[in-house]
Amino acid sequence: MSIFEALESQVRSYSRGWPVVFNRAQGSWLYSEDGKPYLDYFAGAGALNYGHNHPLLKQALIDYIQNDGVTHALDMYTVAKRDFLEALDEVLLKPRGLEYKVVFPGPGGANAVEAALKLARKITGKEAVINFTNAFHGMTLGALSVTGNSMKRGGAGIPLVHATPMPYDRYFDGDYPDFFYLERLLEDSGSGLNEPAAIIVETVQGEGGINAARVEWLRALSDLCKKHDILLIVDDVQMGCGRTGPFFSFEDAGIKPDIVCLSKSISGYGIPMALTLIRPDLDVWEPGEHNGTFRGISPAFVTGTHALRNFWSDDTLEKSVRAKGERLGNGLTEIVEAHPDASLTAKGKGFARGIEFADGDTAGKVCAAAFERGLLMETSGPDGEVAKLLPPLTLTDAEVEQGIEIIRESVAAVLR
Amino acid sequence: MSIFEALESQVRSYSRGWPVVFNRAQGSWLYSEDGKPYLDYFAGAGALNYGHNHPLLKQALIDYIQNDGVTHALDMYTVAKRDFLEALDEVLLKPRGLEYKVVFPGPGGANAVEAALKLARKITGKEAVINFTNAFHGMTLGALSVTGNSMKRGGAGIPLVHATPMPYDRYFDGDYPDFFYLERLLEDSGSGLNEPAAIIVETVQGEGGINAARVEWLRALSDLCKKHDILLIVDDVQMGCGRTGPFFSFEDAGIKPDIVCLSKSISGYGIPMALTLIRPDLDVWEPGEHNGTFRGISPAFVTGTHALRNFWSDDTLEKSVRAKGERLGNGLTEIVEAHPDASLTAKGKGFARGIEFADGDTAGKVCAAAFERGLLMETSGPDGEVAKLLPPLTLTDAEVEQGIEIIRESVAAVLR
Amino acid sequence: MSIFEALESQVRSYSRGWPVVFNRAQGSWLYSEDGKPYLDYFAGAGALNYGHNHPLLKQALIDYIQNDGVTHALDMYTVAKRDFLEALDEVLLKPRGLEYKVVFPGPGGANAVEAALKLARKITGKEAVINFTNAFHGMTLGALSVTGNSMKRGGAGIPLVHATPMPYDRYFDGDYPDFFYLERLLEDSGSGLNEPAAIIVETVQGEGGINAARVEWLRALSDLCKKHDILLIVDDVQMGCGRTGPFFSFEDAGIKPDIVCLSKSISGYGIPMALTLIRPDLDVWEPGEHNGTFRGISPAFVTGTHALRNFWSDDTLEKSVRAKGERLGNGLTEIVEAHPDASLTAKGKGFARGIEFADGDTAGKVCAAAFERGLLMETSGPDGEVAKLLPPLTLTDAEVEQGIEIIRESVAAVLR
Amino acid sequence: MSIFEALESQVRSYSRGWPVVFNRAQGSWLYSEDGKPYLDYFAGAGALNYGHNHPLLKQALIDYIQNDGVTHALDMYTVAKRDFLEALDEVLLKPRGLEYKVVFPGPGGANAVEAALKLARKITGKEAVINFTNAFHGMTLGALSVTGNSMKRGGAGIPLVHATPMPYDRYFDGDYPDFFYLERLLEDSGSGLNEPAAIIVETVQGEGGINAARVEWLRALSDLCKKHDILLIVDDVQMGCGRTGPFFSFEDAGIKPDIVCLSKSISGYGIPMALTLIRPDLDVWEPGEHNGTFRGISPAFVTGTHALRNFWSDDTLEKSVRAKGERLGNGLTEIVEAHPDASLTAKGKGFARGIEFADGDTAGKVCAAAFERGLLMETSGPDGEVAKLLPPLTLTDAEVEQGIEIIRESVAAVLR
Repeated sequence: MSIFEALESQVRSYSRGWPVVFNRAQGSWLYSEDGKPYLDYFAGAGALNYGHNHPLLKQALIDYIQNDGVTHALDMYTVAKRDFLEALDEVLLKPRGLEYKVVFPGPGGANAVEAALKLARKITGKEAVINFTNAFHGMTLGALSVTGNSMKRGGAGIPLVHATPMPYDRYFDGDYPDFFYLERLLEDSGSGLNEPAAIIVETVQGEGGINAARVEWLRALSDLCKKHDILLIVDDVQMGCGRTGPFFSFEDAGIKPDIVCLSKSISGYGIPMALTLIRPDLDVWEPGEHNGTFRGISPAFVTGTHALRNFWSDDTLEKSVRAKGERLGNGLTEIVEAHPDASLTAKGKGFARGIEFADGDTAGKVCAAAFERGLLMETSGPDGEVAKLLPPLTLTDAEVEQGIEIIRESVAAVLR
Repeated sequence: MSIFEALESQVRSYSRGWPVVFNRAQGSWLYSEDGKPYLDYFAGAGALNYGHNHPLLKQALIDYIQNDGVTHALDMYTVAKRDFLEALDEVLLKPRGLEYKVVFPGPGGANAVEAALKLARKITGKEAVINFTNAFHGMTLGALSVTGNSMKRGGAGIPLVHATPMPYDRYFDGDYPDFFYLERLLEDSGSGLNEPAAIIVETVQGEGGINAARVEWLRALSDLCKKHDILLIVDDVQMGCGRTGPFFSFEDAGIKPDIVCLSKSISGYGIPMALTLIRPDLDVWEPGEHNGTFRGISPAFVTGTHALRNFWSDDTLEKSVRAKGERLGNGLTEIVEAHPDASLTAKGKGFARGIEFADGDTAGKVCAAAFERGLLMETSGPDGEVAKLLPPLTLTDAEVEQGIEIIRESVAAVLR
Repeated sequence: MSIFEALESQVRSYSRGWPVVFNRAQGSWLYSEDGKPYLDYFAGAGALNYGHNHPLLKQALIDYIQNDGVTHALDMYTVAKRDFLEALDEVLLKPRGLEYKVVFPGPGGANAVEAALKLARKITGKEAVINFTNAFHGMTLGALSVTGNSMKRGGAGIPLVHATPMPYDRYFDGDYPDFFYLERLLEDSGSGLNEPAAIIVETVQGEGGINAARVEWLRALSDLCKKHDILLIVDDVQMGCGRTGPFFSFEDAGIKPDIVCLSKSISGYGIPMALTLIRPDLDVWEPGEHNGTFRGISPAFVTGTHALRNFWSDDTLEKSVRAKGERLGNGLTEIVEAHPDASLTAKGKGFARGIEFADGDTAGKVCAAAFERGLLMETSGPDGEVAKLLPPLTLTDAEVEQGIEIIRESVAAVLR
Repeated sequence: MSIFEALESQVRSYSRGWPVVFNRAQGSWLYSEDGKPYLDYFAGAGALNYGHNHPLLKQALIDYIQNDGVTHALDMYTVAKRDFLEALDEVLLKPRGLEYKVVFPGPGGANAVEAALKLARKITGKEAVINFTNAFHGMTLGALSVTGNSMKRGGAGIPLVHATPMPYDRYFDGDYPDFFYLERLLEDSGSGLNEPAAIIVETVQGEGGINAARVEWLRALSDLCKKHDILLIVDDVQMGCGRTGPFFSFEDAGIKPDIVCLSKSISGYGIPMALTLIRPDLDVWEPGEHNGTFRGISPAFVTGTHALRNFWSDDTLEKSVRAKGERLGNGLTEIVEAHPDASLTAKGKGFARGIEFADGDTAGKVCAAAFERGLLMETSGPDGEVAKLLPPLTLTDAEVEQGIEIIRESVAAVLR
């Protein structure tokens, strides 16, 4: 392992908790080079919703490469991009009655967020943005400024401004009405709050500790934005692509955000790709006003097209995620209830699940215990106090049970 | 073409100059879906230095995918990453006497720049950065703030601060000593210049109009940084990976930057990947202080490893680029000299070449004329007045001549 | 009046509500040039706490000028400054057990605030500051950034950053615990709140609409600051110098702020002067690091010294303000109760009083009606909905009754 | 002197060089409390252009106070303000063909600058401002951001942004054309310079080291501003009111700035007062959008009115300042020439004069030697290397000679 330690920066993190060298992967499983299998309840932090190297996508990808399909095409027109746009329109937008123009903002989720913020500011002529406590939107300067984690914010080396954090759903355990404070500030011309161009929100905060907003809170947020002429940006980078059940995580709430950020699993195979979907009338950009090198990676379009058509042409996957997600949730609840003195909480929705522990140390130990038992899961939350589960949506029933069992044992081993 | 117009944002740009739908690609050639070949003198804006779908890289990539190698691995340890780090160390760093720690900052060049700026600020405790006139470093907020183009800057929607532009090499056509103004400001405690954490520079400005800094200017810049305790960041995203001849574009100057940004052709196949190389003693990051989803794309490591070992284990490619680049440069000079009244200028170095026209309109027409003749090249420069050539480094002698000939005809057709 | 309209900027404001030309002034009375007296319930927005041209101060001032005492002395040592510092120490600080170093920050309240913010940031190395809804701290860029009024903020022409507004006492009518939101944000490392250098607060918000914080709220605020290592800045520019009863408005709460801003009535005669009082261990400034031309106006020191010794050597004035302030408050309450359907509220403390009307239009009409009846008072609050009373502390009992009577009539005339 | 040391902040500065306690003052003389006279070649840093306690102004002031004229009047209409506006119009503006609306921005020069910057940004919708190397404009956040001195900038505790420093006249000793760099940046859409709302300039930099811009440079600056639609702000706080000869320091250049800042000697007696003069069509402020407590100090209006009418109704004072200023300049040149090996430089214009020494230490010693000999002068410049002379404009011929003689002796004593 010495080359990693010798050459890679101290900033590396996941490798610290999982100190093996991975080699192969299939479905829900990662294998270390000595052949040990690991049940992957992390799934690339949500970038592998259809599991590792899904056979259908794999074959399409190999065929495309084999045939010398264009690989890299900036924002030129390509057959691969056309196929993807058609699939997006037919499979996702039209059936849901959604009208969006598509921006290819760059290869990653942070690019999708940066493009969204830029556009919102350009359109409104306002600089301020409202974000939420424990939000995570990315590591580039614009995305970082709307991210909550103080360690990550500190890395910026400059004061992060133009964003004001507001309490996320149930930040005060429901003791106070939703948007109480925000609405008061917006309506009071003497409040000192800079008038916001946009509000950016995750429907479930993954990095923030698997905090799932209620649909009524999301609806109220959408109404508030409309009332105050604020653009609503849903960052669906981690929770989109079916993570919570429906393709878009905001579908259950019945809202239509002005701007939607997608990435992670949009290519379906782990290849970098991102989208910023914008309300058609917001498409006021000059040609090239936002650009970038990696906006036309055709292999990602190819796997993305196949993923959309294969998994989202009907509601099979959505129903499966809801059902298995519920089973997973119940499993976690049982674990929580088995340790009544440990003040655990089962959290989440669909296949974005977690157990909140008393502190980050405990959660870390549980993840370590799970790793020893062959399951990959990670901590999240401001103090790393939540063991976070983001398994592939394609998890089998057996793998659900297997995962629950390992987690049960790991928790028991740590809390014993 | 209607799906593109119907669904893709107005922000699209390259597709406007090249209104065909591309399908296949091989070596120096792109093919539209109706089978028309285009000689690619743009090469993914520098992301395809080894041409399209290089057979050796293609085979390695297919093998990797076929064998279910891990595709997406965050920053876990993988065999693919280990192989890449070893190649990087053996082929690039050691032979050049360079000592760097490697940061995987995210999938694109802007991520490499953002990580570089963050680190420079964190280390020095200073916020200000010096950039250069007509610099281009990316579209995310941190990278955009050190970029020159006013249209792109305007897209930010917030004032871009913390950066002060200084004149790039020969910005005043050599009438004034290098760094005259900057040194005076740095030495004058009353100058009002915020003390800079870092200076960020491209050795050849691609987007800025193919402005190649002289090696003595780069050396003087490096000396100035050392003298004033300023970190020197070389953004080698476009000019690295052999674009100007040597792997690192700063090798000819004999300098050792504190931080180097790489992306575009580092994966060798057009798959998103980026690196930030940092002086070992600058590696002060906390684990996870900078992170991101797409920092461990194994297919990019695989093609990157093969590209390094295949093209950079000896100096064959470097010599070839120097030689063919000179031929290309001479070809452009001949074209320039054939139009003595048109005030043209041949610019550039290695395989980063250009012709500066009187205005952007003329340059645009020349590019359009070339497109009609089956050659892809684009404009750059503040007013789009430079026709920019970034052909694959693997261009054959015949393709060099073919390109020169098409450009010659295109220029003649427009200036006639 | 034409020279005013012809030459003075549209930015003028008070002259719009009181369109007469004033000439002379004595005690609680201003006289227009045609000899009409006006009972001054505005007192220079709190700059004339001892009334206009108090005979004792006037004589001291004339004597000083007559004897060619130094008028302007930058920050040199002068006899006048020495006398002032001695009086400050003997009359104010020592008897109250307060230890402060004195900064002469410039001539006005905004200078006192700017100096306070600069010092707090320098000491802590943090940029962020917490301010409160409807705060007013001044019109210079630093002071404006912690001010709430959106119209005034808009005048800055740049985004005002580095400050986050928090709810002032009873912003939610007592429905929520004090500092509920702020404490949660401070304790949550993922909240996204930039760690604050300081909290700046007025004990009674004058411009904000005569909002008087409860002493228990102020105490809790002080405790919170201590607990989280945040500097507490009390802006006593308008509420200090006895406006609420005691010299420092925070005395009733029994707290000791880290930094105190004074101005307005500190010179006692309306001559510009300001002080920033700082905890001795915070005195880390370099000589001249904060300076300015008008920091040593001896006439202000002279009247200031006499004001301190005459009015604050015992508790006569303090008791009088408390008693008459209560009478004034009761008078306002009677007026409010006489109009049960008009949803009026009597507000304030000491001689900082007000009536809140349903809207700014009504409050403006009441002030206009009072002006017609020979009483000066102004509106405040985010929508100008509060008629604000800041009479001289030296108001006689008869003038209290006279004022109440005019206000009663004016309210009746408007609400009839 | 213990009360000063015990109670006053370390930030005090002038008192360190002149460690005596001053008491009385008349004309060009300050007296310490033990009766020692000091010839004042500092004149309140330019706030006492008519000397200390000028008899005519003194009598007018005493009369006004004696008669209970309004002292403090916010921005109400007063007889004192009317008289002042009339004098300003009749004596200053009309005869010079200048049309300005008058803003009373607050009590000091920094307020005048803050108002100017706010207005320029509001009007243009741009945030950026160009300032000059070694500029000094004040200590509040807006004014400080356009000030050069790094020690003073460091006091801000936040990054000072939105301003870019450009080289002042002869910053490179005339080796380079004026505005060479600035014009190039403005004309190059890729330069990375944020488009400026305004350029702020002193015609002679006092704090910056008595750098007097040539009239042709000022004219070129004015032309450049017109050409590029940039507002020109002349900060005449220190150099206005006759300091360089004419009332406005820019008169010799024949330019008409869009905005002019005045303070220091505008009241004529050392009482705080400031003006921002704005081109009539720039008067777009909302009532009260910029306000403040100390904008209507009638004693300052009274002495200001008398100063304008007495000193500026004809050109007697202007001619005298030019003549005596030349004599003073010649005297300094003789001193400089008497020390050919010490690399001294005589600098300045009118009664803004200085000698530049090899370093700040020498200049400081010369000022100390002058103090011992009964003359007050101070250092300026980025390293305090310039002994700065700002004597009263009313200096007698004898006092000119006396000053020169003391300076001659002091220089000789230090350089011996």
